[in-house]
Amino acid sequence: MDTVKPKFIPRSQATRQVIIEKTATIFNKKGYVGTSLSDLTAATQLTKGSIYGNFENKEEVALEAFRFNFQELGKRITAYVSREKSPIEQLFAFTRFYREDFAIMKYLGGCPLLNAGTDSDDTNESLRREVVNAFEITLGIIGGLIEAGRASKDLRSDISGIKYSMLFFSLIEGSILLSKTTNKKSYLFEACDRIDKITREELIS
Amino acid sequence: MDTVKPKFIPRSQATRQVIIEKTATIFNKKGYVGTSLSDLTAATQLTKGSIYGNFENKEEVALEAFRFNFQELGKRITAYVSREKSPIEQLFAFTRFYREDFAIMKYLGGCPLLNAGTDSDDTNESLRREVVNAFEITLGIIGGLIEAGRASKDLRSDISGIKYSMLFFSLIEGSILLSKTTNKKSYLFEACDRIDKITREELIS
Repeated sequence: MDTVKPKFIPRSQATRQVIIEKTATIFNKKGYVGTSLSDLTAATQLTKGSIYGNFENKEEVALEAFRFNFQELGKRITAYVSREKSPIEQLFAFTRFYREDFAIMKYLGGCPLLNAGTDSDDTNESLRREVVNAFEITLGIIGGLIEAGRASKDLRSDISGIKYSMLFFSLIEGSILLSKTTNKKSYLFEACDRIDKITREELIS
Repeated sequence: MDTVKPKFIPRSQATRQVIIEKTATIFNKKGYVGTSLSDLTAATQLTKGSIYGNFENKEEVALEAFRFNFQELGKRITAYVSREKSPIEQLFAFTRFYREDFAIMKYLGGCPLLNAGTDSDDTNESLRREVVNAFEITLGIIGGLIEAGRASKDLRSDISGIKYSMLFFSLIEGSILLSKTTNKKSYLFEACDRIDKITREELIS
């Protein structure tokens, strides 16, 4: 006879949320895989029993912490992009966001996509899948901006939204790695300047 | 009276080297911060005492493992670049290396610079400084190729080696993050195509 694992039911949704919010930055700094249970109890002032009463295991806390960090990043980006009306201005708002937000991102431990991607790729399959999903959402947003610009004829008709979004996203993530590790924003700024140059020279019709 | 900490003397340089080589890939996969002592004893079949007889602490093993992984990557890149004579061909060999080496890099847990940079930036200052040093070496090699091309008049005289090396390196690292996490090489290939395009259109005189 097969045994069926009983479904885990968290004790309190409110406590779950408190745990997620209080540990999200720690996961982003110490690693989604490397953060220990004692880091979590220290940050939340809760007992081990309370954490495991609300999450199935440490991996589930890591997964929810990543989702939270990605959503918060998304809100900060949206605040910049949604202010602009045209797809061209929205593309420029995207790089302006990264230039102006860098100090905040640094304080929060860097880009959650970069951190969770490198952390999870060889060790935590459920988190890796979640990061891939977050990549696809981000690429879809940038690609969607470009496609909207094609539709409105602000951008050239013979360009591929997905190809440029891959390029822009690679430039952003690689330069954040360099800027965050060296603590020099010039790498990120150079990448943003290049994205703006490509937008002006290759995308605008 | 000040107490002076006695200098740590490893028991055996040969055993040290065995430990470094047997654990280097594990550190690159599980994280330079996240790899545990039991991961090290399992990989080396040595006791905890034997590891701590040869290294001052786990951080020192991580540091040496990173150095080893960076050197090995350097050897693989050099094998491609040193075959070519002209700076232009050497720049193209650099992107060809990344395209052709991706399967090996994946097998070894990804780019050590990307992994150790994101791992160490908020948690391990000695490793972070070592990664910054490795970034500077890598940027210096790419920038040096470009400067050599300027000197030989193969490349334009009005370009900045350091600016283009920052850009190329950001593209490579960001696209490795995407390709390694999603297990799709198209991101890395797109970035390499863009680097080659920039070389052809902006660097060659």
